[in-house]
Amino acid sequence: MWRDLAPIGRHSGTGGYRRFAWTGADADCRAWFEAQARARGLAYEEDRNGNQWAWLGAASAADVAPGEAVVTGSHLDSVPDGGAFDGPLGVVSSFAALDELRRRGAAPAKPLAIVNFGDEEGARFGLACVGSRLSAGQLTVEAAHQLRDGDGVTLPQAMERAGHDPDAIGPDPDRLARIGAFVELHVEQGRALDLTGDPVGIASAIWPHGRWRFDFHGEANHAGTTRLADRRDPMLTYAATVLAARENAEPAGALATFGKISVEPNGVNAIPSLVRGWLDSRAADQETLDTVVAAVERAAVERGARDGVDVRVTRESFTPVIEFGHALRDELAKILTHAADRRPGGAREVPVLGTGAGHDAGILSATVPTAMLFVRNPTGVSHSPAERAAEDDCVAGVTALADVLEGLACR
Amino acid sequence: MWRDLAPIGRHSGTGGYRRFAWTGADADCRAWFEAQARARGLAYEEDRNGNQWAWLGAASAADVAPGEAVVTGSHLDSVPDGGAFDGPLGVVSSFAALDELRRRGAAPAKPLAIVNFGDEEGARFGLACVGSRLSAGQLTVEAAHQLRDGDGVTLPQAMERAGHDPDAIGPDPDRLARIGAFVELHVEQGRALDLTGDPVGIASAIWPHGRWRFDFHGEANHAGTTRLADRRDPMLTYAATVLAARENAEPAGALATFGKISVEPNGVNAIPSLVRGWLDSRAADQETLDTVVAAVERAAVERGARDGVDVRVTRESFTPVIEFGHALRDELAKILTHAADRRPGGAREVPVLGTGAGHDAGILSATVPTAMLFVRNPTGVSHSPAERAAEDDCVAGVTALADVLEGLACR
Repeated sequence: MWRDLAPIGRHSGTGGYRRFAWTGADADCRAWFEAQARARGLAYEEDRNGNQWAWLGAASAADVAPGEAVVTGSHLDSVPDGGAFDGPLGVVSSFAALDELRRRGAAPAKPLAIVNFGDEEGARFGLACVGSRLSAGQLTVEAAHQLRDGDGVTLPQAMERAGHDPDAIGPDPDRLARIGAFVELHVEQGRALDLTGDPVGIASAIWPHGRWRFDFHGEANHAGTTRLADRRDPMLTYAATVLAARENAEPAGALATFGKISVEPNGVNAIPSLVRGWLDSRAADQETLDTVVAAVERAAVERGARDGVDVRVTRESFTPVIEFGHALRDELAKILTHAADRRPGGAREVPVLGTGAGHDAGILSATVPTAMLFVRNPTGVSHSPAERAAEDDCVAGVTALADVLEGLACR
Repeated sequence: MWRDLAPIGRHSGTGGYRRFAWTGADADCRAWFEAQARARGLAYEEDRNGNQWAWLGAASAADVAPGEAVVTGSHLDSVPDGGAFDGPLGVVSSFAALDELRRRGAAPAKPLAIVNFGDEEGARFGLACVGSRLSAGQLTVEAAHQLRDGDGVTLPQAMERAGHDPDAIGPDPDRLARIGAFVELHVEQGRALDLTGDPVGIASAIWPHGRWRFDFHGEANHAGTTRLADRRDPMLTYAATVLAARENAEPAGALATFGKISVEPNGVNAIPSLVRGWLDSRAADQETLDTVVAAVERAAVERGARDGVDVRVTRESFTPVIEFGHALRDELAKILTHAADRRPGGAREVPVLGTGAGHDAGILSATVPTAMLFVRNPTGVSHSPAERAAEDDCVAGVTALADVLEGLACR
């Protein structure tokens, strides 16, 4: 499976993947998904939002009783120059887990489906999880129709060019209501499993996270003639704020990153009139996050007063903590511990860990019992060609997913 | 004069000027210059590099004996959203000084010329003082033909569209050899005169200055999942370097500015792989400048070691100190002191001051006896719509320039 998927959308220069929603590389990934489904005799369908489904034990979602289906899957699109595993590992492992169930001779008592959610990374239109958001009603059709890529192409135009009807998109509560459990397997995007020494873990929650825009207003002036004492240089305030973000996040166990900046006029010999920096911050709980962001804002304002720079902070987006349901999470833990019990080496508790990243599973968790499995990432590197997972760990992930599907669907 | 010139190339939104070389606004400025020359009965000509000349006492440069001409002038183009005075004050004051000479009944014994040098700011093609550099042989025709603006238009294409022959450009030693003295009046771009309380000063030197590109190489990673301890975040190293530049420049009396930045991938949820920052630094002497830049580089490398970030520094440009000739400078001081002596209020020493900014006068000083007069700028603001000079100070500038022209040409 990997062999066919590996070259799609890979950039020859960077070695990274550029699989953006509704592009040619995306179409190739989708064709691969359909071929995998058909090769296994699964019933293939695409829903109104362009998410792909492969059914075992049902001809389509319409065949399934409410709360009956056990669904697994992830996404195939990538960030710019992303790695091979973020997304595809979950889809490939889903097909491999189905193969494993068949090898075991396990007979599912419930309909099983594998899903590929469209446009998870939001690399093209700037909003993540568009496919699952639309289905869950967390993104309105009007808002989706306004989305535009960097070349000014709207989402409807892009979908139409890719052969998908943009007028069909919208909430899909009926389809989601048929899902009794959704389990997404994903490569870990940190090093928690590497540090505990476990190949596979279960997600506890997606950390609360947000984006804050810091506008530093100074005064444009000539860099070659303006005395330091006469300057109102917003780059200084920005620099002090970047350092303050790290200094405040570290002791709190939180994350804080300034990764995007925009400067006016951005000239070598010009003191900027405006520096705009975006803070991405996340923490295990809301209170910690609030404390860290408030401290960064305070540091910015204090330094701004010294530099003669006016600081304005705007919260551009915010997602509260998403706790995955304890019932399904505990069931996964029981299934995995029980399965390990029967194998050489014996039982070992499966670690439960939080994550700072968003996922389709997080979107679905509002309406569907949802859980996630993580596979160890030895370097913790993510959204980069250096992202990795060892083959043994990938196999352990498939085994765990097969155990879970068997436990949920075959009893 | 100001009334006709004021609206040309002014942006209605910012109130700043956008007079870029070989554009429509530039053509309007040039038409204004020619009209001012003709209205005074001056002989008008454009040289091979598109610089404009208005002659009194000669039909053209070809009429003038070597070392005979007394020339004044400046430039009419602007930086993006520049102020009204940087450049135009020198040209307007030149015409006004000529009017003043005539009012005094002073009869020049030598040919006098007013010049408008083309493309001084380099706002369009990225290189400053193109007109004077070409004439002085400090920019080769080959290099000039390679210059390109942000839309990919080459300098020859732009000149041709503006009706000027791009194949005519090149060094003009014969023309420069005819100049016995060039005096450029310019609005001060700092607050030195404001601090001494003088309306007009004489330039001593243009400080040595340069541009250094700092490349901070880190590792792209997911801002939402990568532990702080596992990061190699070049934005942190950049921020520490920005602060180090200020901290090292301040006690040395030097200038150091990070005004331009470029970030890859510049995404809100991405730790950057690369941050590129440009340092503009200037000081009164070479040794101070070297010391400051070395200290900034050392601070960057030290912080980079802590952040796991590789730092590379490239000097992109460098201009050594330009000392204006002492003979002409001392003559200007004598003339101005003597002139003040005869007026109410009496003599007062004219301050002599250095500047961090480049000028056409700096280019010409390599081959022609050159001096500069500065007019007080109460805020020190430059390259911004907030740039200002008081009317009284502008009048004092015209009077001083008329005194200088009278002293140099009418004896």
